[in-house]
Amino acid sequence: MGNTATKSKVITSREEDYSQWYNDIVLKAGLADHSDVRGCMVIKPYGFGIWENMKEFLDKAFKETGHQNAYFPIFIPKSLFEAEEKNAEGFAKECAVVTHYRLQNDPDKPGKLRVDPNAKLDEELVVRPTSEAIIWNTYKKWIQSYRDLPILVNQWANVVRWEMRTRLFLRTAEFLWQEGHTAHATKEEAIAETEQMLHVYADFAENVMAMPVIRGIKTESERFAGAEETYCIEALMQDGKALQAGTSHFLGQNFAKAFDVKFASRQGKEEYVWATSWGVSTRLMGALIMTHSDDMGLVIPPKLAPIQVVICPFFKTEEDVAAIYDYLKPTLDALKANGVRVKFDDDDSKRMGWKMAQYEMEGVPVRIGVGKRDMENGLVEIARRDTSQKQQVNISDAATHIEQLLTDIHDNLFNKALQHRAEHTTKVESYDEFKEVLEGKGGFISAHWDGSAQTEEAIQKETKATIRCIPLINNHEEGKCIYSGKPSKQRVLFAKAY
Amino acid sequence: MGNTATKSKVITSREEDYSQWYNDIVLKAGLADHSDVRGCMVIKPYGFGIWENMKEFLDKAFKETGHQNAYFPIFIPKSLFEAEEKNAEGFAKECAVVTHYRLQNDPDKPGKLRVDPNAKLDEELVVRPTSEAIIWNTYKKWIQSYRDLPILVNQWANVVRWEMRTRLFLRTAEFLWQEGHTAHATKEEAIAETEQMLHVYADFAENVMAMPVIRGIKTESERFAGAEETYCIEALMQDGKALQAGTSHFLGQNFAKAFDVKFASRQGKEEYVWATSWGVSTRLMGALIMTHSDDMGLVIPPKLAPIQVVICPFFKTEEDVAAIYDYLKPTLDALKANGVRVKFDDDDSKRMGWKMAQYEMEGVPVRIGVGKRDMENGLVEIARRDTSQKQQVNISDAATHIEQLLTDIHDNLFNKALQHRAEHTTKVESYDEFKEVLEGKGGFISAHWDGSAQTEEAIQKETKATIRCIPLINNHEEGKCIYSGKPSKQRVLFAKAY
Repeated sequence: MGNTATKSKVITSREEDYSQWYNDIVLKAGLADHSDVRGCMVIKPYGFGIWENMKEFLDKAFKETGHQNAYFPIFIPKSLFEAEEKNAEGFAKECAVVTHYRLQNDPDKPGKLRVDPNAKLDEELVVRPTSEAIIWNTYKKWIQSYRDLPILVNQWANVVRWEMRTRLFLRTAEFLWQEGHTAHATKEEAIAETEQMLHVYADFAENVMAMPVIRGIKTESERFAGAEETYCIEALMQDGKALQAGTSHFLGQNFAKAFDVKFASRQGKEEYVWATSWGVSTRLMGALIMTHSDDMGLVIPPKLAPIQVVICPFFKTEEDVAAIYDYLKPTLDALKANGVRVKFDDDDSKRMGWKMAQYEMEGVPVRIGVGKRDMENGLVEIARRDTSQKQQVNISDAATHIEQLLTDIHDNLFNKALQHRAEHTTKVESYDEFKEVLEGKGGFISAHWDGSAQTEEAIQKETKATIRCIPLINNHEEGKCIYSGKPSKQRVLFAKAY
Repeated sequence: MGNTATKSKVITSREEDYSQWYNDIVLKAGLADHSDVRGCMVIKPYGFGIWENMKEFLDKAFKETGHQNAYFPIFIPKSLFEAEEKNAEGFAKECAVVTHYRLQNDPDKPGKLRVDPNAKLDEELVVRPTSEAIIWNTYKKWIQSYRDLPILVNQWANVVRWEMRTRLFLRTAEFLWQEGHTAHATKEEAIAETEQMLHVYADFAENVMAMPVIRGIKTESERFAGAEETYCIEALMQDGKALQAGTSHFLGQNFAKAFDVKFASRQGKEEYVWATSWGVSTRLMGALIMTHSDDMGLVIPPKLAPIQVVICPFFKTEEDVAAIYDYLKPTLDALKANGVRVKFDDDDSKRMGWKMAQYEMEGVPVRIGVGKRDMENGLVEIARRDTSQKQQVNISDAATHIEQLLTDIHDNLFNKALQHRAEHTTKVESYDEFKEVLEGKGGFISAHWDGSAQTEEAIQKETKATIRCIPLINNHEEGKCIYSGKPSKQRVLFAKAY
């Protein structure tokens, strides 16, 4: 066993500049690119491949819990958008607005176009920042009786929120997401749905992304605009900042009232419908990167890796490649038969060393190098991306070994992240201690809070830390608020956040 | 064997009003719905399920031919949009344009919002009607050398074309589609790609949608704006009108020149890159409906049916259902094991007759009714949607019989459509005959044309028929243009079209 270098030459190290390190990885691993459209990104094929794998797992989980996909218009007429006031207020400041429907030749600039002043819309259209309004306006037509409920619908879509400061994947003007929108006959059923989807997200984060998360509830000031309760999963990044990785909202009857959606109950009474919505977005790509990657580049947990195993033959001639391919064929066949995504890279326009470094940068979980000597000895050299360990393995055991390795890598990534979180979750008893930890090692800070929005706001103003959540699993320990000294019934989790 | 009624009570018949029949099917089978956004539709879960199946087949075919998915911004800055002049001219008149990025409270109307006049964009953003401009502006950064080529990228996305007259699926302001955008080092390779993708579409149309298509080339006036050559597949609907079901464009170096995308060739020369683009859209849903459906409702070819087989038990008590379920379990298991999408409908809130009629309306290929008498006799009653035939089958043979039936239904649907097309493709020798056929039985008309845009335009003005394509498989038969009498080298296909 041996270790390779622990630092790439082409990316900034985390210690040097965490933010630059993140950007370097996104660009150099070919995940995304800036575009010439303010705040909008291009998701490159390799990055999109990871997102497709995320989608596949999530979509399956949604369908297994009884949901179906549908599609609603990208535009929301202003009058519908403003119907649910809190929701409208929450998003009004970041809306892209369509005002015209035609361009024409610019009479002053030959060959150029301008907006046709005669093609102004009677009513402006908002490009959806979220779809509650357009969807509940539609549900009104679909729901008359309890027989029409529940409606369990999800949509995969692009949304636009005009952010002033953008970062690839983490905060972009346009992003991709899924938004579930369900309608129920009872409050209890809607709350059960909200909680169910939170657990679907948490299972996905932990079992697929290898990213431990805290399940919790948002405080009132951090709630989704228009929700009665917002559940969330919160993850801790390597730099000690938190990232909200998914939210599930119990919307009460707010949207049903705003759009007048009633149903005749089994007892014949007319009642407003209960609602939930829940979503995760391409932000998860940012969370994935900042949970596992290192100074050599991207690290992808095996279940999401577009290429799980790459094999690079050492060769000079076509005969060499053919011989190595024959040598490996039983291993390749066995892996493929078990659904392992394996690539045999016989591209001769690039050097072996360059290729291996590039696959390391791209976070391929397992890399295999094979040359003539290995064949003579009946071996292959297997390198795992997470620990950089290399190991000689008998060719006859290779397939079994690799499959086990993929499981081990997932577990190791999860455990490493869990340990990091444990080491960066601190109980504090005073505001001084709070500030010291926040500015020192960072991470989650578990502290008593008096439950008031004023205290929350004051702490945020003074320290930039926010209450990430009130954890679902929480000791109901009494204490005193670290800021106001007032009584508190439980600890909450603070952190600086993305 | 017996036949059920041939006419639904809830939809208009084709003879009565074809256009109304189409709308009735879309709405009553739960495929799509009108929205309160001008020209935009809601794709309902059942319709979206069919579209998801289409996507799955197509996506697999794209990946098998070496393509990867990616994602590009929905917005195109006006200056990029106008760079390729023909393309810009072709789409300028139907562009939704974003001019502002914020709403604010309307000082004159409490609780209402208005566009914030201080949030006007410096440069307007076009909501993509197609993505060549934004993509080639990006490819400029990705391509330096022949080693960066080919780029084989596809995107699944929503696009917006501000159509004045809209129809669900066939013509909507927003629609879903895929757009492939490839970049090549040579003209030959780009043309080969264009042709390859045409054949991928044709195979999909015929082998999955059971919809025969003519592969051909568009005339210059029907070409995609910015293309050198547009290949297409054309299908014939039941009412004798043609529908363009997919296009594949050879774009030459037009976009490379507009966006200055050059590469260093293997010989070290700097050259412009060659391009293709190709797409199919949710329009295919309209084609599917109008190819196979009948006066009882939707007919879906088995490969695309969200539910391929539905089983409705005849029951009064829970014990009845349990007994029928046990009776059918081996059949259900065998079908599921072979990947057949089968639903056992034990919903007791709806009557058996209502359910069977609804599944007929929804086009489920195979319906099975089972009651006590059937169990005693060891039988099941199997109804196929395409022919309305019912048949008693031994329970032990049921699974095998059903699987064969799914294949037979596909073949029957394809052959029926093929026969319809054959009966509605007419060779004509004169303009009088042309007009007579066009106004009579309709369909494709194979006629000589002098090759000029003027003749094409004149015929269109006088008859509303357009040249659908110059078929790829065509006898190079000399003749005289039916309109001008000038010499012609081959026949082309005319039709009225959607």
